[in-house]
Amino acid sequence: MLNKKGVTIWFTGLPSAGKTTLSLALASELLRERVDCEVLDGDAVRVTLCRGLGFSKEDRDENIRRIGFVAGLLQRHGVVAIVSAVSPYREVRDEVRRKLVDFIEVYVNAPLAVCEQRDVKGLYGRARRGELTGMTGLDAPYEPPEQPEVECRTDEESLPESVAKVKAALRHRWPGLWR
Amino acid sequence: MLNKKGVTIWFTGLPSAGKTTLSLALASELLRERVDCEVLDGDAVRVTLCRGLGFSKEDRDENIRRIGFVAGLLQRHGVVAIVSAVSPYREVRDEVRRKLVDFIEVYVNAPLAVCEQRDVKGLYGRARRGELTGMTGLDAPYEPPEQPEVECRTDEESLPESVAKVKAALRHRWPGLWR
Repeated sequence: MLNKKGVTIWFTGLPSAGKTTLSLALASELLRERVDCEVLDGDAVRVTLCRGLGFSKEDRDENIRRIGFVAGLLQRHGVVAIVSAVSPYREVRDEVRRKLVDFIEVYVNAPLAVCEQRDVKGLYGRARRGELTGMTGLDAPYEPPEQPEVECRTDEESLPESVAKVKAALRHRWPGLWR
Repeated sequence: MLNKKGVTIWFTGLPSAGKTTLSLALASELLRERVDCEVLDGDAVRVTLCRGLGFSKEDRDENIRRIGFVAGLLQRHGVVAIVSAVSPYREVRDEVRRKLVDFIEVYVNAPLAVCEQRDVKGLYGRARRGELTGMTGLDAPYEPPEQPEVECRTDEESLPESVAKVKAALRHRWPGLWR
């Protein structure tokens, strides 16, 4: 291992809370500032890294552990791994945090009613119509972080404001990322 | 993406052909020369990245695709991804090669009789005693590469000779890895 130091930024929150938007905006700014990063999006990896996993608690936990494993690999090669995943269960999020150590959790928070109104992927609608079950926030639990390093209230603050909060937390803890 | 260029070195061969030994020796030399690298070992990832996958053709192919996906992520952040995996099926190896582009295949070749005599993990013995089935080289196929960039005959050449061949191929194609 060469002496490189990356970190993992973990965006958790309800579907349609704004995780993907925020993670892509953050990545875009970091790259502009020459900070190497990679977005691991929970939805995107379901056709590659996590193909075949479903939405049971067991499969969701495996999904999170697997993303965490890959984030850890990237991190130890100096990359800022940006994870965007509902990751509804506190216990497995904390397990990943303990493993990765250089880790910040960002709670992407908007009230359920707002997320449901946005319904970016139409999932809330399908769940309300009875076309799918196990929908986080409706008939499956979402356990909010108890002490997230950052909380972004995406219904109250602008995207640049949210990105700035995450970047400030990063810069405060790991100024060496900007070299 | 910052403009970093890594590569993937894929060691394929029968169980006990010497893949792990070779990949670790290569990694050790590269790190000494300040070339950032990561070993992804087929056996090791079966308890993390590939937990739950078995040894059917389908599961073996999924195992290879998943390792290939992670190698690709590391590679595009400037890391030399060193994969050590039996990877018995030519088609999925070639699929990974096409995706990764900057890829060299190293055929770690020793005759079956030699591998069986080494039997590092006792798998050949167990298979011969009827305690396991689907053993590559015995009752499951191994499809050797048709045009590997490097072939290491681990029964005829020393470990330093094999490592030197792989490094020469790397240096010839990607001299920029040594900065």
